[in-house]
Amino acid sequence: MTGGGLGEFELIRRYFARAGARPGAGSTILGIGDDAAVLRLPAGHDLVAAVDTIVAGRHFLRGSDPRSIGHRALAVNLSDLAAMGAIPAWATLALTLPAADPDWLEGFAAGFFDLAREHGVELVGGDTTAGPLAISVQILGAVPAGEGLRRSGARPGDLIAVTGTLGDAGAGLEVARSPQRAHDAHARALLRHYEFPAPRVAFGRAVRGIASAAMDVSDGLAGDLAKLAAASGVAAAVDVERLPLSAALRATASPDQALDQALGGGDDYELVLAVAPAAASRLAAAAAGTATPVTVIGEFLAGEGVRWTRGGRSYVPARGGFDHFAGASTQFTD
Amino acid sequence: MTGGGLGEFELIRRYFARAGARPGAGSTILGIGDDAAVLRLPAGHDLVAAVDTIVAGRHFLRGSDPRSIGHRALAVNLSDLAAMGAIPAWATLALTLPAADPDWLEGFAAGFFDLAREHGVELVGGDTTAGPLAISVQILGAVPAGEGLRRSGARPGDLIAVTGTLGDAGAGLEVARSPQRAHDAHARALLRHYEFPAPRVAFGRAVRGIASAAMDVSDGLAGDLAKLAAASGVAAAVDVERLPLSAALRATASPDQALDQALGGGDDYELVLAVAPAAASRLAAAAAGTATPVTVIGEFLAGEGVRWTRGGRSYVPARGGFDHFAGASTQFTD
Repeated sequence: MTGGGLGEFELIRRYFARAGARPGAGSTILGIGDDAAVLRLPAGHDLVAAVDTIVAGRHFLRGSDPRSIGHRALAVNLSDLAAMGAIPAWATLALTLPAADPDWLEGFAAGFFDLAREHGVELVGGDTTAGPLAISVQILGAVPAGEGLRRSGARPGDLIAVTGTLGDAGAGLEVARSPQRAHDAHARALLRHYEFPAPRVAFGRAVRGIASAAMDVSDGLAGDLAKLAAASGVAAAVDVERLPLSAALRATASPDQALDQALGGGDDYELVLAVAPAAASRLAAAAAGTATPVTVIGEFLAGEGVRWTRGGRSYVPARGGFDHFAGASTQFTD
Repeated sequence: MTGGGLGEFELIRRYFARAGARPGAGSTILGIGDDAAVLRLPAGHDLVAAVDTIVAGRHFLRGSDPRSIGHRALAVNLSDLAAMGAIPAWATLALTLPAADPDWLEGFAAGFFDLAREHGVELVGGDTTAGPLAISVQILGAVPAGEGLRRSGARPGDLIAVTGTLGDAGAGLEVARSPQRAHDAHARALLRHYEFPAPRVAFGRAVRGIASAAMDVSDGLAGDLAKLAAASGVAAAVDVERLPLSAALRATASPDQALDQALGGGDDYELVLAVAPAAASRLAAAAAGTATPVTVIGEFLAGEGVRWTRGGRSYVPARGGFDHFAGASTQFTD
């Protein structure tokens, strides 16, 4: 590093030297400051790893609250761990940003580390590079060996359950695009769902051994449920009248618009699960124990594809899945 | 995903579904295709994790051979594992690229996976996003518990040793900027050092229990040795006449230019080590056993800072460290 760059990027280093929280699982042998971090998993546990990148203008609006960007960069990864039933422990952060704006960095770091502390995530490595704003977070966690939840375990006859409510974040993104709407309390509630999603980490851990399959709903239920069904080699049948919709969404959108957001809006970071009917009471106990609303919306069947109905009639979702603003994003690990 | 984006990014998915090699350590319980990967470390081993991002126009020239970009994106991370004495096992890849050019992707994937196979690295996750070209790789490996090499273990009296030759990559970058020079065999050799660095993974593993400290030389020896000395709380004394310089560098640069590249050029991805004199014969055996040239260039002393000499007189390196083209890059983990 030379010249003015040194001061700017030394500043950034200070923001991220806080390192977050003690890991929720395992222990940190060597954290930030060497060529690599050295991390110890708890005995009898497997490592769970995921990565997600969010890019300005694609995964968040340019000019977004930096606290929301920091929160979401970690939240989307925590949601992947939640879907595996894993315990979060560590993260690395690759931050590309056009300039070292102290106010922006302060907000970003606050959003990132507030969520990190909540979930026991320690930042153990990363780098910062000048360039167009993009954030890659890799998350590392632990799961008791052999107990990780997968997409592939759903069986015919299993119930389809989802956490929370669907469509709020998609509707919240519309609010973010039309800030004049944020005077309304319902609109603000939707915006908050979009800006500060709450990944279902505790619930994911609680349904290990109860759910036969799980996946996070990040790209809209229509596309994500189709992926889960395909990974399990089963069909799914859902009555869209059973989808859990918030009061805020019902108050601010027509029934058709609300369904469109719930099925295709994306960014909800809820979980969709397969649960055998015999495990339904244990599912209810896990939901109660983690204060997580859970709704049964249909069932898995022999066959393939998803059969959507509305009041007994066939229904075709308007969108297949969240388009990340422009249709040009894919994940090897979804 | 919608419209034309689907086809393009499905194409990309195919390039990376190859997944590379079987992991060099541990086993893959669940690879690409779920919300996260599930990975099992060998018993008695710690996890070693590092991340590095390379950005077009900053860490590589725009228009570079995509095979070189794919190679270097992984090599810079393998070099971090080498410096810890770790065994590589898995990687995740966050790829941001402006368009899905099949020729570019073919070259990038070939460069990435050729090196992955050589070092036993399996690709277990990642995502691809449309945007300005940037590549983040996180590498995961294993080290026997408590045996990882660190920067902080150098003691007064330890020898300072470096692998390979220094300055070739920095000089190779100059060749890349002046392609007309590549008609010369020496210039082509330097260019190859820059484009296809060979991380010292086998040697790093071989010097566990022999070296008292280690670090990779990625930003130029002058800056990196100063960091290692500071992390260990010792001083270092180096006679720059002892620096290992290749025949190609000597043939194409003046003595002053060659020293400048060796001390400040960056991108060499060699290792710098501290070794107690009593362990020197074991160091030589590790070097011979892994066919790795090793040169002793000085020693660590009580105190702080690096004392550079040239033929008995004090010497001041022209550059403190590699500037990544523009001075705006920092790593929490270096």
